Amino acid sequence: MLDRTPGWRTGKTLADGTIKLSSNENPLGLSPDAREAVIESLVDANRYPGDYRGALMEELARYLDVKVNNLTLGFGSTEILQVAVQAFQGPNTPLIIAQPTFEDISDYQDTMPFEVEAIPLTKDLQHDIGRMRESAMRRPSVVYFCNPNNPTGTITSSRDIDAWIAEAPETTTFLMDEAYLEYASDDSFWPAMKWIEERPNVIVIRTFSKIFAMAGLRLGYAVSHPTTARRLNEHTVQNSPSVVAGAAGIASLKDKGLVDRAITTNAESKEIVHQTLDELGLDYLPTNTNFIMHRIKGDLGEYRNRMAEEGLLVGRDFPPMLDYNRLSFGLPNEMDRWAEAIKGFRKNGWI
Amino acid sequence: MLDRTPGWRTGKTLADGTIKLSSNENPLGLSPDAREAVIESLVDANRYPGDYRGALMEELARYLDVKVNNLTLGFGSTEILQVAVQAFQGPNTPLIIAQPTFEDISDYQDTMPFEVEAIPLTKDLQHDIGRMRESAMRRPSVVYFCNPNNPTGTITSSRDIDAWIAEAPETTTFLMDEAYLEYASDDSFWPAMKWIEERPNVIVIRTFSKIFAMAGLRLGYAVSHPTTARRLNEHTVQNSPSVVAGAAGIASLKDKGLVDRAITTNAESKEIVHQTLDELGLDYLPTNTNFIMHRIKGDLGEYRNRMAEEGLLVGRDFPPMLDYNRLSFGLPNEMDRWAEAIKGFRKNGWI
Repeated sequence: MLDRTPGWRTGKTLADGTIKLSSNENPLGLSPDAREAVIESLVDANRYPGDYRGALMEELARYLDVKVNNLTLGFGSTEILQVAVQAFQGPNTPLIIAQPTFEDISDYQDTMPFEVEAIPLTKDLQHDIGRMRESAMRRPSVVYFCNPNNPTGTITSSRDIDAWIAEAPETTTFLMDEAYLEYASDDSFWPAMKWIEERPNVIVIRTFSKIFAMAGLRLGYAVSHPTTARRLNEHTVQNSPSVVAGAAGIASLKDKGLVDRAITTNAESKEIVHQTLDELGLDYLPTNTNFIMHRIKGDLGEYRNRMAEEGLLVGRDFPPMLDYNRLSFGLPNEMDRWAEAIKGFRKNGWI
Repeated sequence: MLDRTPGWRTGKTLADGTIKLSSNENPLGLSPDAREAVIESLVDANRYPGDYRGALMEELARYLDVKVNNLTLGFGSTEILQVAVQAFQGPNTPLIIAQPTFEDISDYQDTMPFEVEAIPLTKDLQHDIGRMRESAMRRPSVVYFCNPNNPTGTITSSRDIDAWIAEAPETTTFLMDEAYLEYASDDSFWPAMKWIEERPNVIVIRTFSKIFAMAGLRLGYAVSHPTTARRLNEHTVQNSPSVVAGAAGIASLKDKGLVDRAITTNAESKEIVHQTLDELGLDYLPTNTNFIMHRIKGDLGEYRNRMAEEGLLVGRDFPPMLDYNRLSFGLPNEMDRWAEAIKGFRKNGWI
């Protein structure tokens, strides 16, 4: 892809010759329109970002077909997770999460005397709604769904989630983290957005870090009932987001080709990875995201070190799935290099 | 200044013909070096900001002559204030502040069942250390000093503050907000930095929004004892700051001329304002910042509306000082326009 479409790629993917395939970043880099918008916005870098915030809220509301008062902006969706913990949890309101899932929300528990219930995914890698629901029925609680789920890349049936939401009391708060939304192609997944006007206890969480390639600029948001949005807003850091995140966010939402470019490139890279793993007979989980969990034979730490020696950063430990490695999809030519490396490992008898 | 040094001014000061003299922003705009660094950093905008964070921490430690483990970075110093509230206050640990002072820290109380004691400044506009101390002696508490103080622009004697810190128990946490540090020229003010290794209960809070002209990029920090810094860090939003704030922060710290340029321009603008107010016989408070509190005659709201009609945004209400207007120092030629406007008001008998 680097060579094939040199005109519009603005993201650096090879720093010091190293290819980073470990943080589920979008390898295409910032949209060229966003890049221009950021540079133009720098004349306002000495001013507080109020004007950009307002314009971004309006553009985002239009993009999502919601109202501005449904929105809460954050310094990345990780701030939204922190704010939700502060606004909705308590000593008697535990967090119920899948095991494994995205780690940030449990990290934010450490500063509070709160309780976490981590419930293993089912055998087919869905959230175990039966057990989660059983646990939530006992008392007010906050339930976190990362769907599609990180680090597994898998989805949980939206029909099953909807059935629970429809019957849940208002004292069960649902945090629906849809960071990887746009990459999902399985028909049994759909967004949870339809609940936000009807159910103040459903909070949809999104990010500009993935499909919009803005991980470095820190912009995320929640969509929820106006009452809930107001409560979340009270807990956010003031003066969010920055002028540049505002400018880049607005331009990215307006860049009509951006989402398709990202999905197409991701699909191309995924295909290379699938073919390679199939060829080597290495199992992997079905992915609806921009990364994949796959097995290797032998020690995972050693595997990652050897990949690092090849200039490829791949995965980290995601307990309890310590026999899987998480691989993010870079550009197709980067995945070619990974394929070459892992095939070499096989020749050496390492995997 | 616009006309005098066109080469290095990168900040827009006239948007839609309006001059903003209301938010204590630095009118010089982003350092040209920072601007270049931001543009270069955009190639990493799709990556999480870890590398920039590390490099910024090192540069900042060098600039301040402290260790990296003394530092806590935030999305503006306002995040530091929020984090300090979360880490050190509690239902039985009230906040003790001056009245008036910078509002953000009290705003963050609204989400917690915490108590605030607002103690009026003394007649000579210093924090009333006697009364604050009396209140703090009764129980653990968090004491907030904005020094120089916003919105008054005045300072509190550092000798008096030091005397209290030297004798205070560890259960009194001192938040020393030095946002306007570099503008202070009064000999009785000095930074509180010397306490940080000796006293884990002293937290120095700084920002890149003022002297470094980065209000739109959101970067602030705390300097404290490593134990305290660790505790503060646990409460911050993850992945702070953004790639661009990191790049701009590093470049601004390295731009040796930046601080002097800002101080010189500020002094020039201050002089114009002083002369004008003296000429009109309007009282004002002594300022050690990039803004001033001055009286006008007649209704303040009406005065501000009339200034807005002239394309000049000046001040807002700062209770209980409702007979003063706060004016931020823009560029000298912007202050000339303000001077012309207010002299016109006098001719009309409005002030």
